[in-house]
Amino acid sequence: MKIAILGLGAVGKGVTEMVASKDLGISITGIADSKSGCIDSSGLNTKSILVKKQKKGFCGDKALSAEDVIKKADYDVLVEVTPTNATTGEPGLSYIRQALKRKKHVVTSNKGPLALAYKELQTLAKKNGVALRFEATVGGAIPIFHTLEHGLAGNEILAIFGVLNGTCNYILTRMADEGLTYEQALLEAREMGYAEADPTYDVQGIDAAIKLVILANTIWGDGVKLDDVNRTGIDLLTPDALKLAEEEDCTIRLIAEAIPKKKLLRVAPRIIEKSHPLVVEGTLNAITIETDMAKEITLIGKGAGSIETASAIIGDLLYIRDRYVERA
Amino acid sequence: MKIAILGLGAVGKGVTEMVASKDLGISITGIADSKSGCIDSSGLNTKSILVKKQKKGFCGDKALSAEDVIKKADYDVLVEVTPTNATTGEPGLSYIRQALKRKKHVVTSNKGPLALAYKELQTLAKKNGVALRFEATVGGAIPIFHTLEHGLAGNEILAIFGVLNGTCNYILTRMADEGLTYEQALLEAREMGYAEADPTYDVQGIDAAIKLVILANTIWGDGVKLDDVNRTGIDLLTPDALKLAEEEDCTIRLIAEAIPKKKLLRVAPRIIEKSHPLVVEGTLNAITIETDMAKEITLIGKGAGSIETASAIIGDLLYIRDRYVERA
Repeated sequence: MKIAILGLGAVGKGVTEMVASKDLGISITGIADSKSGCIDSSGLNTKSILVKKQKKGFCGDKALSAEDVIKKADYDVLVEVTPTNATTGEPGLSYIRQALKRKKHVVTSNKGPLALAYKELQTLAKKNGVALRFEATVGGAIPIFHTLEHGLAGNEILAIFGVLNGTCNYILTRMADEGLTYEQALLEAREMGYAEADPTYDVQGIDAAIKLVILANTIWGDGVKLDDVNRTGIDLLTPDALKLAEEEDCTIRLIAEAIPKKKLLRVAPRIIEKSHPLVVEGTLNAITIETDMAKEITLIGKGAGSIETASAIIGDLLYIRDRYVERA
Repeated sequence: MKIAILGLGAVGKGVTEMVASKDLGISITGIADSKSGCIDSSGLNTKSILVKKQKKGFCGDKALSAEDVIKKADYDVLVEVTPTNATTGEPGLSYIRQALKRKKHVVTSNKGPLALAYKELQTLAKKNGVALRFEATVGGAIPIFHTLEHGLAGNEILAIFGVLNGTCNYILTRMADEGLTYEQALLEAREMGYAEADPTYDVQGIDAAIKLVILANTIWGDGVKLDDVNRTGIDLLTPDALKLAEEEDCTIRLIAEAIPKKKLLRVAPRIIEKSHPLVVEGTLNAITIETDMAKEITLIGKGAGSIETASAIIGDLLYIRDRYVERA
């Protein structure tokens, strides 16, 4: 199976390295970053490409764009791992559309296009007889979509509850454990590299809400959008609130929850018993799925990281390989 | 797709009810308990069968045996859910062999045959071009095998750690929370219906060890057997041990662990930090998988129960339906 990779940040680099080092029957025939591209239908020399990227800041031929790679490279699956833009979904949204129209499978870690245009993209994929997979968009290495699709097949999904943002969870863990103020914990998260210079996207629950929208659309197909999520961040939480929770053997976590029967779609800090499986520490993510037969199933794992995210993307690639490409 | 069900205890009853009530495209054409059987290639009336079972203690025609159902019924998949015998694997082992030889797929919740003859049965299934699936044997409703097969595809599995026995976990939870002695907690577990009259199989770690053997064989295919597991039960634990753990913000759990690189295959009570994802309460099960890419992924869920186990079996059935039967 041949793949082309768009985006050579932490995730693209992780995927490139893992595909090159593991014997998965996958060759990389196209790569593009924001400045350049490389195409070789017999398989690229990924080692020299990654060295060039690190030394020069771009990976290939400046005469080749991402669009060129999409249109001209010889591949079965496009791996779209450019940065997320939650407002426009671009450039990922256009890249995904173009690849699907070329009847190419797409695997993406890009939350923007999925949250903004889930239905449109799935319809486009179906029309062209190809797969659009996005395990890496929610929960990092946690295989939540595979679990919903296979492990819990036949179950009716009644509700979903998630700790979907590692930055917020780190801040809340540090506030609870060390009695830090929100500002102190945020500063520490920045120093550790867990929070951006502008933390709005994380601490106001936007990132968690986007992931909730992707989950809800996948499970219930009800076309919800980011604006439909009732959202409260963690930026107004005080150490006192955490102390009060502690007195009841509880703590506070930013919980994203979707309960269709209650028409509930919310991201908010919630008081939760410390012994509850969703109460994870530090930058971990956790997702509880409530179903009619299996009841509550919780998955916990690393919500971010180059290689961890590559794990989710490779799971999608191998699924497409076994299910579509080898059968063709 | 047509299925035949052997065994009409809690699990068999759960599967029958769920298959009958959900629109899964599955019809039940054979059922047998230990005393009788029913066969109807156009689909059995499961409602009247379950009523008869409850009223009379047997489900069908006493002239028909489980073997008759295996040999004469018209089905794609045999659902083998007779009681586990850890020493001989019977009668399940023979039933599974017969069905595989008839080129029928098999889905089972029966740990005995898998722990005793994993390699033989998988070889037999392969030779006959059919699937042998057993999601329900480990972790109840937790889709551990689906996760290993799909969600973590491409990962190297480095180690596995599990809380695999709900009875032990209930006893340990109660000893820690209430300061009960082992004997008091066991008595309570019996009263709650979580422990058998003879609790040896659970409290000495045999049940957890059998599950560990099935996991190890599935992941690493190294043909380990129950005798290879270094095993210590919870029956000698004192409340003092739990108190000491508590002082370090830890607790004690019966952990089943397999680490091939250390040649470690062990079931034993272990001191573990309370905040570790494996520390679950009551009768819950939990499994942590350590891999090269995803790092640590933990799954938590109900380890037993009629409908919860049916969830695992139905996941296997739908996988076979989509992967084998509909393609044929």
